[in-house]
Amino acid sequence: MAKQIIECVPNFSEGRSVEIINKIVKPFSGHKGCALLDYRADRNHNRLVVSLAGSPEPIKKALFEASDIAVSHINMELHEGGHPRIGAIDVIPFTPIQNITMDECVDLARDFGKQFNGATGIPVYFYDEAALKPNRRNLEVIRKGQYETLKKEIANPERAPDIGDAKMHESAGATIIGARKFLIAFNVNLGTNKVDIAKKIANNVRASGGGLCHVKGIGLSLKDRNLVQVSLNITDHKRNAVYRVLELVKMEAKQFGIQVVETELYGMAPASAIVDSSAYYMQLAGFDPNQIIELRLLQMLEEDDE
Amino acid sequence: MAKQIIECVPNFSEGRSVEIINKIVKPFSGHKGCALLDYRADRNHNRLVVSLAGSPEPIKKALFEASDIAVSHINMELHEGGHPRIGAIDVIPFTPIQNITMDECVDLARDFGKQFNGATGIPVYFYDEAALKPNRRNLEVIRKGQYETLKKEIANPERAPDIGDAKMHESAGATIIGARKFLIAFNVNLGTNKVDIAKKIANNVRASGGGLCHVKGIGLSLKDRNLVQVSLNITDHKRNAVYRVLELVKMEAKQFGIQVVETELYGMAPASAIVDSSAYYMQLAGFDPNQIIELRLLQMLEEDDE
Repeated sequence: MAKQIIECVPNFSEGRSVEIINKIVKPFSGHKGCALLDYRADRNHNRLVVSLAGSPEPIKKALFEASDIAVSHINMELHEGGHPRIGAIDVIPFTPIQNITMDECVDLARDFGKQFNGATGIPVYFYDEAALKPNRRNLEVIRKGQYETLKKEIANPERAPDIGDAKMHESAGATIIGARKFLIAFNVNLGTNKVDIAKKIANNVRASGGGLCHVKGIGLSLKDRNLVQVSLNITDHKRNAVYRVLELVKMEAKQFGIQVVETELYGMAPASAIVDSSAYYMQLAGFDPNQIIELRLLQMLEEDDE
Repeated sequence: MAKQIIECVPNFSEGRSVEIINKIVKPFSGHKGCALLDYRADRNHNRLVVSLAGSPEPIKKALFEASDIAVSHINMELHEGGHPRIGAIDVIPFTPIQNITMDECVDLARDFGKQFNGATGIPVYFYDEAALKPNRRNLEVIRKGQYETLKKEIANPERAPDIGDAKMHESAGATIIGARKFLIAFNVNLGTNKVDIAKKIANNVRASGGGLCHVKGIGLSLKDRNLVQVSLNITDHKRNAVYRVLELVKMEAKQFGIQVVETELYGMAPASAIVDSSAYYMQLAGFDPNQIIELRLLQMLEEDDE
């Protein structure tokens, strides 16, 4: 059986101490089958965002080790930073990449949540696809008022955790664990310096403006380049592929007589996001990603490993 | 250092005996790091074409084992078939895929040729990028008159092998070894049943008709579908990407008022061929294939292996 691959992007509430950041990140490169793709710490946010990909088991092992380190080095009573947070290990989302369904990622998140609470004593909330309560699909509902408010309100039934006692861990707060689809960050730069136009196009293309489902977007000015940008998040690229989002931006830009100067794919993307758009533009019939040598090699290397 | 990956497509002169074909193919799935992507035997051609990808060392080991089996089971004195051939192990091309240059593949082919001759006694010719004589870049020059003619002419200096004695192996003939670029088979189906139009477009697009370098093409009728096809080989997709070939076909089709119905990518393709065309159509600036999760995972798994 072909190996299951997930992405996991744990967020830790430490963005300033290089020593602590290095300690937290270390386990993620110490487990075969868990690949550390990237990590970024932000001083102002006082937050560390780690990107992992690989098999569920080694990723879970590395998460337990990193969480132990985070618990012993981060004290939420002393923490301050620009990014909303309720705990030392603030959010852990699991995302299906290959040979794994969303339902399996939901099970994975919930099982991990139970084990995580058992091992650390930290109360756990489930969000997005793994939410047990409908209003907790939205991360911000769980994180409302942040650590300081939740500490007071956690005993209220409507704010009680999904797993664990209804009180915060004394130093590490609470943790939000979930399963979600891959998020693609896609920017379209337009040949004008009128930011109003970018804002109008963003509004017309995004779901909240009546445009495409699973698409969020804002209009920005790129002042140093004398251009504007429609900055988009595609939260379900299987239901709204990158090509469709791009073509809709072009269509809306046409009414202003404005052209796309260039686009940017920010951060990581799964192969399917690129392949689907290629297939559209090239009118490729019956193309199978297994025809891509590197994807076949990846599958074969993974099978060798088992 | 990231692991080197090559493609290798050895051709054996046996397309009829399932027993012998299975014996020849077996070593290709028995070496870690050598992935058997595909194999196809054709009764009329009486030929077996194997597609491999992986690291040079395990591929070479598997080639030695498969060649031993081919030598003991194929007798060129008795061989007949529709495809031109001069030996039991007729052609072995090496193609760079990842972290390896063409020059390194040329060295690999020549080193392998020496070892191959030492181990089997089969005379070796080098072709394409590995050719030692300019006219031997072209495979068909080496294979002129096939086994039966070469057997008589091999003692002539202009037909002498590059490695080994100037006489055929008594049963296995001679072998052609080389390094070449990846060949992409790309078909464009057009909304007409006039095969003359497909032939004209093929001629205008291909190098021999004055069109794009590194592109070969013919026009065919797809009778059962009432369509015609421009069937193309791109022999250097880094210098003429798939998108450029497709757009030129569209441009030529326009003069006949004809549209592209669909396209087909036949067989394997390296990720770069898909990514380059995506980047063109999506106007992606500064896109790095390392942003594709699966390609990063492949690199990481390969590094783990070392």
